[in-house]
Amino acid sequence: MSTPVSSSSLYVPPYVRAQLVEQQRCLEQQTEMRVQLLQDLQDFFRKKSEIETEYSRNLEKLAERFMAKTRSTKDHQQYKKDQNLLSPVNCWYLLLNQVRRESKDHATLSDLYLNNVITRLTHISEDSARLLKRSKEITFQLQEDLMKLLNELYTVMKTYHMYHAETISAEAKLREVERQEGRVKGVSGSGGVEPVFGLRIEERHQRRNAARKMEKMREKRKAKYSENKLKTLKARNEYLLTLEATNASVFKYYIHDLPDIIDCCDLGYHSSLSRALRTYLSAELSLEASRRAGLEVLEGAVEGLDPARDRQRLLGLYPTAFCPPARFSFQAHMGDMVNQIAAQPQVQSELTLRLTQLQTRLATLKIENEEVRRTHARTHTHTHTHTHIQTCTPTQTTASDTFWFLFSVMLISETGGLKIIPATNNKIRKAQRLPSEDLLEYGELWDGLCKYG
Amino acid sequence: MSTPVSSSSLYVPPYVRAQLVEQQRCLEQQTEMRVQLLQDLQDFFRKKSEIETEYSRNLEKLAERFMAKTRSTKDHQQYKKDQNLLSPVNCWYLLLNQVRRESKDHATLSDLYLNNVITRLTHISEDSARLLKRSKEITFQLQEDLMKLLNELYTVMKTYHMYHAETISAEAKLREVERQEGRVKGVSGSGGVEPVFGLRIEERHQRRNAARKMEKMREKRKAKYSENKLKTLKARNEYLLTLEATNASVFKYYIHDLPDIIDCCDLGYHSSLSRALRTYLSAELSLEASRRAGLEVLEGAVEGLDPARDRQRLLGLYPTAFCPPARFSFQAHMGDMVNQIAAQPQVQSELTLRLTQLQTRLATLKIENEEVRRTHARTHTHTHTHTHIQTCTPTQTTASDTFWFLFSVMLISETGGLKIIPATNNKIRKAQRLPSEDLLEYGELWDGLCKYG
Repeated sequence: MSTPVSSSSLYVPPYVRAQLVEQQRCLEQQTEMRVQLLQDLQDFFRKKSEIETEYSRNLEKLAERFMAKTRSTKDHQQYKKDQNLLSPVNCWYLLLNQVRRESKDHATLSDLYLNNVITRLTHISEDSARLLKRSKEITFQLQEDLMKLLNELYTVMKTYHMYHAETISAEAKLREVERQEGRVKGVSGSGGVEPVFGLRIEERHQRRNAARKMEKMREKRKAKYSENKLKTLKARNEYLLTLEATNASVFKYYIHDLPDIIDCCDLGYHSSLSRALRTYLSAELSLEASRRAGLEVLEGAVEGLDPARDRQRLLGLYPTAFCPPARFSFQAHMGDMVNQIAAQPQVQSELTLRLTQLQTRLATLKIENEEVRRTHARTHTHTHTHTHIQTCTPTQTTASDTFWFLFSVMLISETGGLKIIPATNNKIRKAQRLPSEDLLEYGELWDGLCKYG
Repeated sequence: MSTPVSSSSLYVPPYVRAQLVEQQRCLEQQTEMRVQLLQDLQDFFRKKSEIETEYSRNLEKLAERFMAKTRSTKDHQQYKKDQNLLSPVNCWYLLLNQVRRESKDHATLSDLYLNNVITRLTHISEDSARLLKRSKEITFQLQEDLMKLLNELYTVMKTYHMYHAETISAEAKLREVERQEGRVKGVSGSGGVEPVFGLRIEERHQRRNAARKMEKMREKRKAKYSENKLKTLKARNEYLLTLEATNASVFKYYIHDLPDIIDCCDLGYHSSLSRALRTYLSAELSLEASRRAGLEVLEGAVEGLDPARDRQRLLGLYPTAFCPPARFSFQAHMGDMVNQIAAQPQVQSELTLRLTQLQTRLATLKIENEEVRRTHARTHTHTHTHTHIQTCTPTQTTASDTFWFLFSVMLISETGGLKIIPATNNKIRKAQRLPSEDLLEYGELWDGLCKYG
């Protein structure tokens, strides 16, 4: 597109001409930058879409790899049967589901970039180009008009100057002829007093002619002068009015038209770009939401980690291993009618003796038991201060159970036999020793756990 | 570890023995599954950590690539200078920042997996192994005790049966001797009436001896019998008591001890696993939070897309191009004192004529102007119904400005000249034509925009 300068005469002040060219350059530059930005955005989203796809594929592979592995396990068969899993296995499955979900979401994201965001951006840059073309046409037209105005201003000024110059010269000529006429009059006047002989009549006749000529000349010059004066007046008026109009339109061009041209270039740019970016944002945000939802489900499963329920489930899973056998019944010998303890006088005393011995044993064991409980309570608090974690409590109860059953085992292994033999003394000592020992062991274990607990 | 069966006699019912072995197998299997799960979790997190690292690296590359590109641009220099950017460029920068942020966050995530989650899991599986060892020891001990009890039960039962059998035989023997004694007594009684000569004294002597022997024998057998009866009584009592005790301890083993052993295996497993998974969860959630925060910033920037402010900024950026030139002043010709419009009688009429002509022109233009406004309003609503988007409003105002300035340009190019010449009639027609034409163009453009708006 040719610059306005070319088409117009050179009466336009050069600095104005330069500015007009500069303005078109700015518009072009602006749109170039805009198109460049849009291009960058498209490249950016294209590349990011690739990255997302790859990420999604990797996650999918990861989930698939472990899913395939677990599908074969007994747990999974169980899961398919009654949906009832050991709580840690449940967490594991949900973890894999979460990865799968993330994979899907990132795939969607990548797809959205390619098929929505980028498309929008392409359209926007096409429109920017179209709008620039249109705006430049408008600018060109406006600048053309401005040029014409400026040239016109120059022309009318020149006209005014020319007419004024002519007026000046016309006035000078008028004054000149007036002076000559005056001199002629003066001569005829002076020579009228002393009569001279011979030529007096012809002379008088000549003088009268000259005076008449002079007067005609003056009239002609006077007319010329006033005609020029009127021309000047009109030209000056024209010049002044044009000057006003030009200043007005120059002002309008700079203050109103130029901003409007820029707006014309911007037409729809911001809103379309905003829509494109909003699409990107909403895609990202819904990915967030989905991810968060998945994590919350997983969080629930972690909350639901429950040793007691898992133990029950284990017992249920292996009934043959854990269901108690039938009670052992009394096998009477042939024809023996008696099937309960008989306390005839001959055995009475012995039974009583054994009873008292058992009672004393029981008393001692009760005391030891109390000691064990106290020691355990201490260890409990000790470990607790190390862990600072509420979730430990069930485990600690378990520990207490363990000590108590270790201890009661000793007790039953004593009483079960229902006889006191020296050998059992070791067992008793063992019963006294074991729990506290275990306490130490568990104490260490706890400290161990606490290190990364 | 040898099974309890080996160490004990074979008096234990085989189904019980099988069950005890099964129990140990279950515990081992349980721990194996657990260790396997923990192993899977570690592999999973190791692999995911790799994926995250790669993802993070790709994002970093992406951001860096465009950052480097923009750093060189004039905009960026400007940005560094006054932090004032065209709103779209601002969005672009924030978009890159967001990607960078995501890259950092995913790197952190990967790091957390490696150095925290996986470590925890390793420790847990070590502990599981340690606890299994300890639990199996306890189980072994408990089962040993149970075996002893069962063997003991068997023994006391056998003892009771033996003694009872002896008692029965002793009783039989007693009855036998009593019968013989009776027969002897009968013989001596019958032969005492008729005296016979010669041998009678020796015979009587022999019979008395036989009777005495018999009696001694009976006494002996009787004592033996009652001794056996007492033994049987004691053995039966022993058997009955042992039976009770055994049933009690079997019950205790199955109902209390086995669950406790399982708890002993579980000691701390659930709580440590929960802590490990919570670490993972909190890492993921803080990544979410950071990402969301970044997106909100970006959302703010998109909100702030503002054509008006950008236009002002552009005008400010190129002052030389857009600042209006000085007013053109009146250039008086040499010695001309008059510098304003003079209305001498000779030009008066002409000026008035022109004034009226201008007024009529202005009136027509005003009417055309109104028409244009109406047409534009219609197009405005038309496009609006097509877009349904609030964000368009600024743009539409822009459009209206554009029409208005296109129109006013025509107006000034008319009035500016301050003369009526036939040539301008085209211009007037143009002024009437242009806006509506443009309206169509913009209408199309809008429909275009709306297609993906």
